[in-house]
Amino acid sequence: MAVRWRSLTAGASMFDTVAIVGPGLIGGSMGMALRRRGLAKTVVGVGRRQESLEKALKVGAIDEATLDLEAGVGAADLVVLATPIGTFGSLAPRLTSALKPEGLLTDVASSKVRVVETIVSALDGRPDVSYIPSHPMAGSEQRGPLAASADLFEGCICIITPLSNTFPESKSAIVRMWKVLGATVVSMSPQAHDRAVARISHLPHLAAVALLAALDEEDMRLCGRGLLDTTRVASGSPDLWVDICGTNREEIRGALDSYARLLQELAERLKDGDLEQLRSVLVSAKQKRDRLVEARRTPRPRT
Amino acid sequence: MAVRWRSLTAGASMFDTVAIVGPGLIGGSMGMALRRRGLAKTVVGVGRRQESLEKALKVGAIDEATLDLEAGVGAADLVVLATPIGTFGSLAPRLTSALKPEGLLTDVASSKVRVVETIVSALDGRPDVSYIPSHPMAGSEQRGPLAASADLFEGCICIITPLSNTFPESKSAIVRMWKVLGATVVSMSPQAHDRAVARISHLPHLAAVALLAALDEEDMRLCGRGLLDTTRVASGSPDLWVDICGTNREEIRGALDSYARLLQELAERLKDGDLEQLRSVLVSAKQKRDRLVEARRTPRPRT
Repeated sequence: MAVRWRSLTAGASMFDTVAIVGPGLIGGSMGMALRRRGLAKTVVGVGRRQESLEKALKVGAIDEATLDLEAGVGAADLVVLATPIGTFGSLAPRLTSALKPEGLLTDVASSKVRVVETIVSALDGRPDVSYIPSHPMAGSEQRGPLAASADLFEGCICIITPLSNTFPESKSAIVRMWKVLGATVVSMSPQAHDRAVARISHLPHLAAVALLAALDEEDMRLCGRGLLDTTRVASGSPDLWVDICGTNREEIRGALDSYARLLQELAERLKDGDLEQLRSVLVSAKQKRDRLVEARRTPRPRT
Repeated sequence: MAVRWRSLTAGASMFDTVAIVGPGLIGGSMGMALRRRGLAKTVVGVGRRQESLEKALKVGAIDEATLDLEAGVGAADLVVLATPIGTFGSLAPRLTSALKPEGLLTDVASSKVRVVETIVSALDGRPDVSYIPSHPMAGSEQRGPLAASADLFEGCICIITPLSNTFPESKSAIVRMWKVLGATVVSMSPQAHDRAVARISHLPHLAAVALLAALDEEDMRLCGRGLLDTTRVASGSPDLWVDICGTNREEIRGALDSYARLLQELAERLKDGDLEQLRSVLVSAKQKRDRLVEARRTPRPRT
């Protein structure tokens, strides 16, 4: 096996060509960062709309653009699938059959078990390709290449969920790339990923959404900054979130159930006038959040 | 009735002396803003700890400091009660009996029905005093005078819950003061206040707290910025929040119940695979939040 991306290290680019399928917020930021850090000689953006690709070119997210999926990915040493999860079903078969021999493939989807199933199934007959699923825990409620930033992944956690039969060199290449982009890489199974992100990302999203659902017009008139912060994520794209929730519904359902039970327990304690229990929940939450803030102030070891 | 603060308008200070009982984040910010905007000739800080008062003096939140409650409030045209709600029971009787004849009194507490009961009961026998309860919807998870800012109330909503027998001139003076401090003043009953803030402030606080309660150590290691924002308010003081929740428990309980029911409904929809219902909830939440963001960009009419 000729590991193309291994022969190109110190002083040279890691990859000759990287194709970003869907150079929006995440894909565009990867393109910018790969170019800025000298990891790729050429970044090719593959999209469905010329207008969006023009924007990606303009902000420096990509070097070249094409609407032709097969041509775009066919010459790439690394392909990053960064379109919404909802497109994977139709894109994956076309994309995988067009991949370069012994190419490297990753995605950046926010749920993993079903995504990995879809892509692995499309990769049937392509044992030469190395697929290492990624989930950089970065982003915002914004979308599109105009919101992209070369620093988006600085200080973020990137979870990878490598398959058991992944070539170690392929995994190393992906890990190295994310580290150079500023991320701390954590490896786990797709199942463990989906369980964890249900609690730290998908549940908080729905919790924010449900807070807004409760507000009437008079409440809206009175809202302060606290609520705007608490619900920031709820300005994210409903389409993207329907896809995410739809592909991780069992774990999210479990997280929602536990969360709703805890809230009802708090309501019961308030009914009883048991404020000491409430105090201990508040104290523990503050300690946890203060630790999270502290951890972000301390640079993470790049391991 | 000699309305002291009315005779002093254009070109002069609105008040000769304002006493801030508890010049912390909110009280200290009021002191700074009153001084900066020329609304008070002298701002006296009344506290329990010399150290805290020194800080308030140092940051310019107050002109003078005293540990003597009676002396501090006795000379003030306006007294602002800005200590934690838990102190009101013991402070209110001492404070009210020391107020200057025909003085003006406000508080800045985050719940109103019980707070108003406590203070009105302490004001028995002082019909000369005008009490106009206030709740400026501003603040942060920080505490103390070092976190204070003269601009804290710029663009915020301040709810007042005047009593039915309040002198119109007293109410006008408080409204005018908040407007000069940058707030949009909304007047409502203490009951309507407590119902609304249960949904827009107290429930979101407990929702954030409960999200953190669900996290284990592994989850903590993976947390991204989204969760930090969603849970920002949970870094607030547990003591303050126990007081707030304790004095608004019926309304918070109702809000928690409705919220938990909505979350369980979402869990049911996910179980059924009914993603269209989820989509409509997500779309409506995004629209609401985008409207809130837009409303904050547009300067509010100062009415």
